Amino acid sequence: MDLNPRTPRIPPPPGARRVRMVLAYDGADFLGWQRQPVSPSVQATLEAAFAQLLGVPVAVHACGRTDAGVHAEGQTAHADLPPAARLPLPALQKGLNALLPDSVRVLSLRPASPLFHARYDALAKQYRYRVWNAPVEHPLHRRTAHHVRAPLDLPAMRAAADLLLGTHDFAAFAANPHRDQSSTVRTLHALSLVKKGPLLEIRVLGDGFLYKMVRSIAGHLLRVGRHAVPPSETTAILDSRLRTARVETAPARGLSLYRVYYTRLPSRL
Amino acid sequence: MDLNPRTPRIPPPPGARRVRMVLAYDGADFLGWQRQPVSPSVQATLEAAFAQLLGVPVAVHACGRTDAGVHAEGQTAHADLPPAARLPLPALQKGLNALLPDSVRVLSLRPASPLFHARYDALAKQYRYRVWNAPVEHPLHRRTAHHVRAPLDLPAMRAAADLLLGTHDFAAFAANPHRDQSSTVRTLHALSLVKKGPLLEIRVLGDGFLYKMVRSIAGHLLRVGRHAVPPSETTAILDSRLRTARVETAPARGLSLYRVYYTRLPSRL
Repeated sequence: MDLNPRTPRIPPPPGARRVRMVLAYDGADFLGWQRQPVSPSVQATLEAAFAQLLGVPVAVHACGRTDAGVHAEGQTAHADLPPAARLPLPALQKGLNALLPDSVRVLSLRPASPLFHARYDALAKQYRYRVWNAPVEHPLHRRTAHHVRAPLDLPAMRAAADLLLGTHDFAAFAANPHRDQSSTVRTLHALSLVKKGPLLEIRVLGDGFLYKMVRSIAGHLLRVGRHAVPPSETTAILDSRLRTARVETAPARGLSLYRVYYTRLPSRL
Repeated sequence: MDLNPRTPRIPPPPGARRVRMVLAYDGADFLGWQRQPVSPSVQATLEAAFAQLLGVPVAVHACGRTDAGVHAEGQTAHADLPPAARLPLPALQKGLNALLPDSVRVLSLRPASPLFHARYDALAKQYRYRVWNAPVEHPLHRRTAHHVRAPLDLPAMRAAADLLLGTHDFAAFAANPHRDQSSTVRTLHALSLVKKGPLLEIRVLGDGFLYKMVRSIAGHLLRVGRHAVPPSETTAILDSRLRTARVETAPARGLSLYRVYYTRLPSRL
């Protein structure tokens, strides 16, 4: 979300065309989205595939910079294709997927308006945090779900979740609230807990998220579920605007950027 | 299933106690269930953990020998614990899970009657074959689902599935029908196709399965779904009792031994 509505939109250079893409990746194989000097990042991996196909560097801008280990099922990004890139988009998508490691895929690639911006234009994002809640971890879920052995009190977690809904200063739920944000106020449109057998999904829809905010919300709800903190404490923690050890950050492996919304919000998660 | 009801049941040696366990594993990390001279097998991995905990060799007998790459969510096995193994079962289960790689887990471990046999006493097994049916493979499903790009005709697949139900000679759906079975007649109690978004599950319940039979059934249904063969051909293929190129073996990664039934069959899959 663009917190400043006057952020200038920069169109593609003359002759270039802007495209938008939906991406999925297995975060276990990457040190996060953002290009970095050392490490495999999703951004650098994608940009290398674009460069190899088109012969010139292409910058890919994502809606959100996922952290090391965090997955994506619906990350959205934009890029400007140079004038020389005459390849039709379906062929370009196929070419990218053929070059990419199987831990990253371009799920869709389509034309965007010249001023489309994957981050500024996003109305909201949905994240899903997955928990395998059983006495024993499950080998087939170990890469995409955090294992919690103790039984979880779902009604207590839902009571705490309800207190987080709406517009609040979420500084107490950010790992480093003043890192790069001028404001720590965000709006959670929905926060629901869906349980199918031992698999619990914490689904969060919000207009924007602070650094490690979803993992902090998940960590807090899990503490509430284990009765380490009463649900009613949630409001006091929010109001403190201070990040303390009362809020835990749940591990990256359970988190997935599920979808980004540009035109309207979903009616349910 | 014990095809010969007079197969002798051998009780544990004096002082030993028989246990049964439910196992889950990520087949991608193993060359199958069965202990082999070279290779990591699930059986050898488990037996090594038992031996390390108890100080003596323990043989683990599974209901079914899954192939290389095939997963399990509910493999069932039995073993005889030596008289010296005084550890309570919950502690033994925890110890095993602490020693095992995270690609294998003992989901439950409990006492069994002295004549219980994981293979001979099984009434039926359920396998699930997973297909990610979308133009692009999904990084988070690539380890546990076979990717099929082409749209699939589900009604045609269901029509073919119905022709496979019941008791038949399944020689045409076995990779090597005469490898170790005296009879190639088996009974499929249920065969249902469940689709959730791009994820298709072929769920099969049968009294027993020939070598690569589930993957052959999945491969055949997928050919029917792509209109490579009409559903009505299914009966002719069955009746031929000959394995030919008309039946494909679907890749191992999509297959999972979902559950073994010992007392009664499930009312639905």
